[in-house]
Amino acid sequence: MDTVTFTPIGVIRSPHKSEEGTPIQPKGAIGIEAYIEIKPELTEGLKDLGDFSHIYLIYVLDRCNDFKLTTIPFMDTEEHGVFATRSPKRPCHIGLSIVKIVSIEENIIKIENADMLDGTPLLDIKPYVPSMDNFETEKNGWLERNHHKSNHMKADDRFIK
Amino acid sequence: MDTVTFTPIGVIRSPHKSEEGTPIQPKGAIGIEAYIEIKPELTEGLKDLGDFSHIYLIYVLDRCNDFKLTTIPFMDTEEHGVFATRSPKRPCHIGLSIVKIVSIEENIIKIENADMLDGTPLLDIKPYVPSMDNFETEKNGWLERNHHKSNHMKADDRFIK
Repeated sequence: MDTVTFTPIGVIRSPHKSEEGTPIQPKGAIGIEAYIEIKPELTEGLKDLGDFSHIYLIYVLDRCNDFKLTTIPFMDTEEHGVFATRSPKRPCHIGLSIVKIVSIEENIIKIENADMLDGTPLLDIKPYVPSMDNFETEKNGWLERNHHKSNHMKADDRFIK
Repeated sequence: MDTVTFTPIGVIRSPHKSEEGTPIQPKGAIGIEAYIEIKPELTEGLKDLGDFSHIYLIYVLDRCNDFKLTTIPFMDTEEHGVFATRSPKRPCHIGLSIVKIVSIEENIIKIENADMLDGTPLLDIKPYVPSMDNFETEKNGWLERNHHKSNHMKADDRFIK
């Protein structure tokens, strides 16, 4: 497979209009509200989704159009391989966040913990369930000593400019 | 954004040659080994990834080429909206798994807990860290009474044929 093409299922509307000042992780965006507009013709696919409190969002990091194989992430001062970070300057510009559902009405999903930019194209939604999605880790790499920063750090424009 | 096109970063080589009999979740694939071939020109992006024990894999569900807005998932007998399930017959054929790293040598990542088919095109790798990626949920939808099945259930060919 040389390339794969996807058609977004909707768009995320958030209060974050630019990278600068945007929370870098959902844990740093607790309570920040946003909403998702699913394409009306896909509304039926949301049946029973409101019975879950948390979902994965898989989306396009559409403000980036290139990548760097190594990078200094927001939460560290050392360079790491891009796949060992969540930097948006990745070969495939795909973002992943776990957010909380506030409500679903027709094709509109109101969410909390939004760390994505306004207008972000959404590719997929999957239910998040701790019993299936939580794993015990033995090693947490450079994030072991830095993960707490995700609770308060905000982005700057280093990955956009 | 009408469509988005990605170039896979590599391919997953697993013992699962067909959908039938493949574990439906990583929790049902504990200890099953597989390996990832990253494109040699992207090897530098793996720097420090071996300091993590677990990673997210985002990949193409390339054996599916259509979707159904509602579906009866492997783990239930009732129909749900596709976004409330992990069915591969989704509008964007994207899969998500958390797997364990066994070793990394050059551009080859040996993994455990592989629930994806042999030859699956890989789009992205991100570090998995419980402190950032685990959330307490209030509601787990239809999976509340069914999630335990993911530890042993195997797929059949319902989503391929």
